[in-house]
Parts: sequence; C-alpha cells; structure tokens
Amino acid sequence: MTINQLTQDECNVILGRASFGHLACSLDDQPYVVPVFLEYDAGYFYVLSTQGQKIEWMRQNPKVCVQIDAIKNEENWTSIVVNGTYQELPEPQYTHERAHARKLLEKRLRWWEPALAERQLKSGQDIIDPLFFRIHVESMTGLRASGEAKPSAAA
Amino acid sequence: MTINQLTQDECNVILGRASFGHLACSLDDQPYVVPVFLEYDAGYFYVLSTQGQKIEWMRQNPKVCVQIDAIKNEENWTSIVVNGTYQELPEPQYTHERAHARKLLEKRLRWWEPALAERQLKSGQDIIDPLFFRIHVESMTGLRASGEAKPSAAA
Repeated sequence: MTINQLTQDECNVILGRASFGHLACSLDDQPYVVPVFLEYDAGYFYVLSTQGQKIEWMRQNPKVCVQIDAIKNEENWTSIVVNGTYQELPEPQYTHERAHARKLLEKRLRWWEPALAERQLKSGQDIIDPLFFRIHVESMTGLRASGEAKPSAAA
Repeated sequence: MTINQLTQDECNVILGRASFGHLACSLDDQPYVVPVFLEYDAGYFYVLSTQGQKIEWMRQNPKVCVQIDAIKNEENWTSIVVNGTYQELPEPQYTHERAHARKLLEKRLRWWEPALAERQLKSGQDIIDPLFFRIHVESMTGLRASGEAKPSAAA
C-alpha cells in the first residue's frame, strides 16, 4: 500500500461526488463529530439538519472541519479533510442560498421530512422548517491509498 | 423513518463490532476529524497511527470525540458518539497495554507496516515503531434510524 497526497483539482472532483461526510465542531476545546448528508457546490458544502448540539456549538464557534471518505477496501481509499466556516441560512436574508440548498438536497429532504415531523410530534414542538446551513471551504488536503487488496465484493 | 435513542448496552454491542470510526480532536477551538481503524475493549478504543497533526494536537488537548456509523441505507442506520480522553501508549511504561493493542489491531498492523516503511523511506526518517494510543470512553449516546428503504444491494 502506498499513500500519496491529492492535488486540489483531485480533491474538488471527489468533493463534487460526495453526498455524505463527517462534520466536526468544537466548543471550549471539546470536539464533537457527527455524520451528515451534504452536497458540495462552488466552494461550499450545503447541509440539511435538525436543531441540536452541533448547531448550538457552531453558532458559538463557526470553525469546523469536514472529512470525506471514499473507501473501496482497506488498502484503496481516499480521504479529504476540509477546514471551513459555518454559515446558517435563515429566511429572509438567505432566501436565494436556501433555495439553492433545498434544490441540491432535494432527495435528502424527502427522507428527512417525515422524521422531522415525527420528532416534533414526540417532543410537542410546533412544526418547524428544516434548518439549512453551509460550510465555506477554506482549505483542504487529500490522501489516496493504493494497494493490492482484493475488491471488497470478492473478500 | 423513525429515530430512537439507543441504550448504553446497545451502544456497547455496536462498539464491540466496530473496526472503523471517525476521531475528532481540537486545538484552540479549531476542530480536526480523521478516519481511524480502531478496536473497542473494556471501555477503551485502541488505535494504531502514524505521527502527524492529530497526535500533536491530542498531546496538547486530550479531549476527543469518536463517532461510529453502522449504515445499511439512508433510512436504516445507527450512529454512536463518544466523548473520551486520549492516552498514548509508549514503551516502557505501557508495555502491557501496548501488547494488548497490538493483539487487537494485529490484522491492521499487517496492512500498515509496509505503508509506514514506505513513508519513512520517502521522508528519510529512521524506521520507527508504529504509534499506539487508546481513548478512554467517558460518555456515549447512540441513535438508530429505522425506515422502509430497500436494502442498498437492491437499490
């Protein structure tokens, strides 16, 4: 297995295909990482989210890190690590960006809306809109491992 | 899709089966997240690592977060988020713990050693032993989503 650095162009191609990643935020130097569905477009990750700890923390400290895997098997994978900044997309200031996020995340929205509705029903909250935010990508690094492992389907 | 909280026992079962996760650390409230191969045993995650940013950061701030996914498809998944503390396992103070880590991570070690050797060759470093550390699990929460999506194999 050899491990090599990816170019920025190679990173961009991989980010463009990604629909899932891991988002880390931090408060008082306690890190917190969760999986997120996301879409990358023109220097931003767009994310659909419920309210919760990550939103509360990113409102207080907008510095985040996003990591994207593309794993074939243990010896053949890429990993991209992005440093970025949290930006919430509330109405009405971000109507345009929010519509763009909604379009990018349309498929995701169809899965999430029933779950959101049920969570609200259980918690007794009023029905609220899903929360959209985006991450401005400030820097990224990528690694690619290449090896001789058999494809996982044949393992 | 419904989302429910997992019990501590359910979390423990899932951690016991995990061999891959995402580790977040933080320095000056800049989070950093990377994928790691790991093994869980008796309240600790054991990890095999090269030197690098995450090690430097965790030495300065041992507060970490580990997240474990088990994903069947978009509507059927579990996610466990663990808060813990970094503990390095150098010789000779941690000979016993290091041997335990080596045994748990044996399979992983066979993949990593050639990559480590090559990285050292390229960087001109002397051959060094792989670095072992463990994460003491201090608290964890888990969620399970259950839905009606078809298994991904049939998608």
